[in-house]
Amino acid sequence: MSQPIRVTVWNEFRHEQTSEKVRSVYPDGIHRAIGEGIEGDFAIGYATLDEPEHGLTEEKLASTDVLIWWGHKAHKEVSDEIVDRVHKRVLDGMGLIVLHSGHFSKIFKMLMGTTCNLKWREADEKERLWVVSPGHPIAEGIGEYIELDREEMYGEHFDIPQPDELVFVSWFEGGEVFRSGCTFHRGQGKIFYFRPGHETYPTYFNPQVRRVIRNAVEWAAPTGRPKPVYGNYKPLETIKAKQHS
Amino acid sequence: MSQPIRVTVWNEFRHEQTSEKVRSVYPDGIHRAIGEGIEGDFAIGYATLDEPEHGLTEEKLASTDVLIWWGHKAHKEVSDEIVDRVHKRVLDGMGLIVLHSGHFSKIFKMLMGTTCNLKWREADEKERLWVVSPGHPIAEGIGEYIELDREEMYGEHFDIPQPDELVFVSWFEGGEVFRSGCTFHRGQGKIFYFRPGHETYPTYFNPQVRRVIRNAVEWAAPTGRPKPVYGNYKPLETIKAKQHS
Amino acid sequence: MSQPIRVTVWNEFRHEQTSEKVRSVYPDGIHRAIGEGIEGDFAIGYATLDEPEHGLTEEKLASTDVLIWWGHKAHKEVSDEIVDRVHKRVLDGMGLIVLHSGHFSKIFKMLMGTTCNLKWREADEKERLWVVSPGHPIAEGIGEYIELDREEMYGEHFDIPQPDELVFVSWFEGGEVFRSGCTFHRGQGKIFYFRPGHETYPTYFNPQVRRVIRNAVEWAAPTGRPKPVYGNYKPLETIKAKQHS
Amino acid sequence: MSQPIRVTVWNEFRHEQTSEKVRSVYPDGIHRAIGEGIEGDFAIGYATLDEPEHGLTEEKLASTDVLIWWGHKAHKEVSDEIVDRVHKRVLDGMGLIVLHSGHFSKIFKMLMGTTCNLKWREADEKERLWVVSPGHPIAEGIGEYIELDREEMYGEHFDIPQPDELVFVSWFEGGEVFRSGCTFHRGQGKIFYFRPGHETYPTYFNPQVRRVIRNAVEWAAPTGRPKPVYGNYKPLETIKAKQHS
Repeated sequence: MSQPIRVTVWNEFRHEQTSEKVRSVYPDGIHRAIGEGIEGDFAIGYATLDEPEHGLTEEKLASTDVLIWWGHKAHKEVSDEIVDRVHKRVLDGMGLIVLHSGHFSKIFKMLMGTTCNLKWREADEKERLWVVSPGHPIAEGIGEYIELDREEMYGEHFDIPQPDELVFVSWFEGGEVFRSGCTFHRGQGKIFYFRPGHETYPTYFNPQVRRVIRNAVEWAAPTGRPKPVYGNYKPLETIKAKQHS
Repeated sequence: MSQPIRVTVWNEFRHEQTSEKVRSVYPDGIHRAIGEGIEGDFAIGYATLDEPEHGLTEEKLASTDVLIWWGHKAHKEVSDEIVDRVHKRVLDGMGLIVLHSGHFSKIFKMLMGTTCNLKWREADEKERLWVVSPGHPIAEGIGEYIELDREEMYGEHFDIPQPDELVFVSWFEGGEVFRSGCTFHRGQGKIFYFRPGHETYPTYFNPQVRRVIRNAVEWAAPTGRPKPVYGNYKPLETIKAKQHS
Repeated sequence: MSQPIRVTVWNEFRHEQTSEKVRSVYPDGIHRAIGEGIEGDFAIGYATLDEPEHGLTEEKLASTDVLIWWGHKAHKEVSDEIVDRVHKRVLDGMGLIVLHSGHFSKIFKMLMGTTCNLKWREADEKERLWVVSPGHPIAEGIGEYIELDREEMYGEHFDIPQPDELVFVSWFEGGEVFRSGCTFHRGQGKIFYFRPGHETYPTYFNPQVRRVIRNAVEWAAPTGRPKPVYGNYKPLETIKAKQHS
Repeated sequence: MSQPIRVTVWNEFRHEQTSEKVRSVYPDGIHRAIGEGIEGDFAIGYATLDEPEHGLTEEKLASTDVLIWWGHKAHKEVSDEIVDRVHKRVLDGMGLIVLHSGHFSKIFKMLMGTTCNLKWREADEKERLWVVSPGHPIAEGIGEYIELDREEMYGEHFDIPQPDELVFVSWFEGGEVFRSGCTFHRGQGKIFYFRPGHETYPTYFNPQVRRVIRNAVEWAAPTGRPKPVYGNYKPLETIKAKQHS
């Protein structure tokens, strides 16, 4: 692919405006930290909840190869119309990377067909993400594990369909495990869910977390193919019953 | 399980009332032919679209272990409220067997997260369903393939998530193939999609088709487990940061 | 199935004879503890390494529906001929449950095609096996997790093919995770790998561990089907090129 | 990746020397036709059965990123030592593309753990490979299906583990279906099995077949990661039992 992959980083962008603590970690917003973390190879744009159409116009989505999604407190404020629009684009081939609390976003739940529920706890505890799929391109450049000193805990059962590929499994200090890096295919689109990234921790400045997101963008980029043909279809071979009727 | 599995066969039950041709094949309705085909081991009930709440009251669903679904022309008439109710029951463990044109039902699309679109053709052509998962319990008692002299064609691409297990693949006389027997897990529920069963053919009287549906009921019956715990969760182990705070 | 499932528990049975410590935990051998743990529904037999043909004669295997395998120090002493015999039986439909250090057995490595290597440590540490597939029949009757006070640690990366279904993921006190309950299908046979069971701990007396093994036996029992047909095969339909030749 | 992917095309290269018919189709050998078909982006080398060490020396394999394998009549003549060497390289990350009759090669059977048996027939019949995974990079640039006027038939049941991803399903004129494009992960290596390519047909000159092989090479190229750590492993966290002992 000679053209750079076009990435749109979507952020709810509310915590950063209402919480001093979050703003101190992400002064320019979580989306900017994510975008800076993958700079270099991609054409990166941004969109946030409070823009018109949440920044996700038809034009914007049509020119997005991979959409990254971070949301938390305002999932319900995302309009159903825009969710349907994003859903359609994913099925048509746009990649989607859902981060952390985006597990409860309308778009992720719609694509999964399940509640996407889980256990959680904010306790400044250690997370260690182990690579369980050692040849997967999303794990390129990552060692045995990624260790994060302090993160929110997410614990099993995580109510998702069985992932097509399980790339990371997290260990938490408090005693839980979590399927932290999961791939899914829906329609022509590729989806990667990646767990870490609570708003009060500098997770998106971590070089290994950034590497995973960069890898995931490359993995999720659309495959160039004509859209599948659906509906009524003429036979490609002679049908005997028809010959005699 | 000492109690018989409680099966509810749901049918749209419209073709049988509006089409002489369909009525001649299924005089008592498609649901009755399906139910009779699996008699013996199960406690079987019925429900149809035009009953109050489509026959799927809270009580009825709460006492259903496995729901079988046949619908075609009136998917849109199924109320969203009832679809949400069925969806919740599946995630809570009720088995679901979706037959033929049920691929476009609201409940199947909601569980899959995709369009569930496909190619189709009504041309009285031959279908041969090959077993590709020879040890799967849904294929118990089935030979190399099931041959149906005349059926509607469904062709790939079938826009579903990759099945957890692929049990049957169909060959069609007109030149297409189709993933005809697919299992999925969503929440605590098990789902089986089975392709054959156009309303103008006596497919549900075929002993092998009946055997597959009976096998699928046994496979999809709920697993006895407490419902998973979700939400805020106390640590099971001591967290160091908390010790010092 | 009206006949009880015929189970053979195979044990290397060496530790119990050479180690006072192991003998104190399993005075009758690990195989007896496993067999007693699943008594009631099954017809249970035993076989050990030092018997002629390791106790796995053609007759014994032909009348075994599910084989349970525990081995550790003497994998190399299992003859290739017997391994080939077991391999053939699994592909023909016999269920196989591989326990703990059986991950390095010849039969498991042959069926997986990989090294089946892993990290390990004997440190009397806590293991907690979380259910990640809440509707799977192998998890029937099991709560959120199984906790074992002291076990050997096995850590990722576990060099196996991606399991068809992942049922349990372990958390270890020392900081690792492990895919502890994995299903695989090979030929007509079903395989379940279950991690716990180091010889110096009373793991196979744990009621929940016993329940999982019992569930796995039921899940792995053979499916009644004719053996697939292989080799040269006559066409089922007319081939045009042949008509003209 | 700035360096071109290094591809080695391995061919048994016997039919071309013993059969006039095959030589007329592949005068330079099947390997050369395959290699020419993917020229441009890759550094391509060749190896054949009758070379010393079958052309697969330690050095050759160490400098191969993706190995393509075509064999048929002489699988047994491939030495076990070389098969073990290739096996080890795949687990260490080398990609492997197994073509057509290579389904019965020692290396493929060893990696799958099954017989890899199937139905077959040489009857100059039509094959149509349908894309069932529309977003998969191996299907990039391919339309609804690939049609081959005359090919050997391979029919289900194909005795392989369930593929990680199923990309193509074949329809055959004589009435069979086949899982024709299958991906597998073993160790750090990626494996793609691709069905077409009987020696008497010019299949490897077909532009779409060549495109699939080229896509598969890109997909199967190694992921840059340190080799996983195995064996005895020190705890990353404090273990309570050890504190008190």
